[in-house]
Amino acid sequence: MSIRAESYLLGLIGEGVLPSLSPALHEREADRQGLRLLYRPIDLLELGLAPTAVGDLLEAAARMGFNGLNVTHPCKQLVLPFLDEVSEDARRLGAVNTVLIRDGGFIGHNTDFSGFGGAFATGLPNAPVGRVVQLGAGGAGSAVAYALLSAGVQHLDLVDMDGGRAVSRAEELQGLFPDRTVSGGGIGGLDMLVPGADGLVNCTPMGMKEHPGASFDLELLTPHHWVADIVYRPIETELVQHARKRGCLVLDGGRMAVGQAADAFRLFTGRDADADHMRTHFLDMVEREGSATAATSHGTQPLLSGAAG
Amino acid sequence: MSIRAESYLLGLIGEGVLPSLSPALHEREADRQGLRLLYRPIDLLELGLAPTAVGDLLEAAARMGFNGLNVTHPCKQLVLPFLDEVSEDARRLGAVNTVLIRDGGFIGHNTDFSGFGGAFATGLPNAPVGRVVQLGAGGAGSAVAYALLSAGVQHLDLVDMDGGRAVSRAEELQGLFPDRTVSGGGIGGLDMLVPGADGLVNCTPMGMKEHPGASFDLELLTPHHWVADIVYRPIETELVQHARKRGCLVLDGGRMAVGQAADAFRLFTGRDADADHMRTHFLDMVEREGSATAATSHGTQPLLSGAAG
Repeated sequence: MSIRAESYLLGLIGEGVLPSLSPALHEREADRQGLRLLYRPIDLLELGLAPTAVGDLLEAAARMGFNGLNVTHPCKQLVLPFLDEVSEDARRLGAVNTVLIRDGGFIGHNTDFSGFGGAFATGLPNAPVGRVVQLGAGGAGSAVAYALLSAGVQHLDLVDMDGGRAVSRAEELQGLFPDRTVSGGGIGGLDMLVPGADGLVNCTPMGMKEHPGASFDLELLTPHHWVADIVYRPIETELVQHARKRGCLVLDGGRMAVGQAADAFRLFTGRDADADHMRTHFLDMVEREGSATAATSHGTQPLLSGAAG
Repeated sequence: MSIRAESYLLGLIGEGVLPSLSPALHEREADRQGLRLLYRPIDLLELGLAPTAVGDLLEAAARMGFNGLNVTHPCKQLVLPFLDEVSEDARRLGAVNTVLIRDGGFIGHNTDFSGFGGAFATGLPNAPVGRVVQLGAGGAGSAVAYALLSAGVQHLDLVDMDGGRAVSRAEELQGLFPDRTVSGGGIGGLDMLVPGADGLVNCTPMGMKEHPGASFDLELLTPHHWVADIVYRPIETELVQHARKRGCLVLDGGRMAVGQAADAFRLFTGRDADADHMRTHFLDMVEREGSATAATSHGTQPLLSGAAG
């Protein structure tokens, strides 16, 4: 006979994670379901720890009774050697953002990719996937590109300020999806690519309050494009606002953020999260945070922990 | 503006602490008050760690976002060198069972002593304190003796199977309370001491399910004695049952257990615990556990973590 019901102790390891919305998202959803859940940000910068300390922190978490962890920038690749099992998708993608602790062992998953994939399927259900241009080939961008190819995109053009990074990431993805076409390059070719694309995806920090503007030339947008953004601070980025005005189908950045959290919640607790409730809560927090930031003028956050943490 | 309300992550470090009732006691009281609180047992035996690992575990707890810890056998003295501050009473007593984590620093308290003291004051409000005989001079016994002297006991006879331990503990206490009389000795002198005592206190494991019987010669009890026990598995020990039958005023072991938890709860959260609610919950758990143990025949627990963890 068990005296107390199951409870969930979770955390988020990364740099600059104190302002993350993940603790509140997970805790509120657990409250709604009557589960005892506590989620702690574990900030490497605050603790003065190097990113490679992620292995020690996993061990500490297991000792201290944690059930699981989210892992964000700059630890999503560094965490891999410390894991006992890794899901097929996370292994192929080479990045883990969710670690389950089971009997002292560590099992890695990636809900950045699955979160974007789920959001794309439900938020843009009939979007054509012949040809897509994605801007940004960093960590979050890699997960999104993997999700787009998993969702059936036939030709993906991966573009980055750092053209070399885009090329090498495209080559890796091409190897993983041999029956598709994945090209990489610098932003110089964008004007040529956009007109022929079905969809445009922003995975750069452009559009955040601290990086105003839009990564795509908004003049090139036409109503036949669908547009996805992963920036969510604010939700209504310049790109999202303009795309809506042009009549494009739009997926805002909150969809991926909530999607990754909902998928992690299901892995952590074994119960489905209500993504609609989570979305409402998320939008409310981002909005309140926006007003507070406007008033106090702080709140810079790195894109990756913002997008995926 | 804070996005989420304060929450409390707590733990209990010691050997054999997995069956401790502290997690459920603290979590239920927090629920009643609408606080988010999660309390994890951190078992040295389960983790294969030496008792001296308590320092490393404190550091891990601070890193992982814990707000506080209870510490029990065999770490209550070992933890002292790792603390930044220690309350006056805990320092004099030389034992800490509650550690607050504040801005990365560790502050030690002792709620074993204060828990017994509070229970004694409310449970036996008019008990005469001229002369008291206490059996058991181990860790829990030391805290109880300190509480009795703090409560005004004039003459304390401290008796233990290990007479030497009782003598040296009595000398320490005599140094702390120079205006009282504290004597120590083996159990051989009990028959002489009991008739002249106002109160009798059991701080040995005798009376637990695994140590049936009573430490005092029950034939010597008279209605003028008050009797306190710290054993609470079961609540109705042979000593407590017999004392009630003889018409003695009685303080059962659940009072100290709940008292230490309530005092720790106040230190951890800054809010008073409702000791009556906690007591009801505690008795319910002990009773259910007793039925379950009877059915499955497991459930041996060391006295100290049982009494004070």
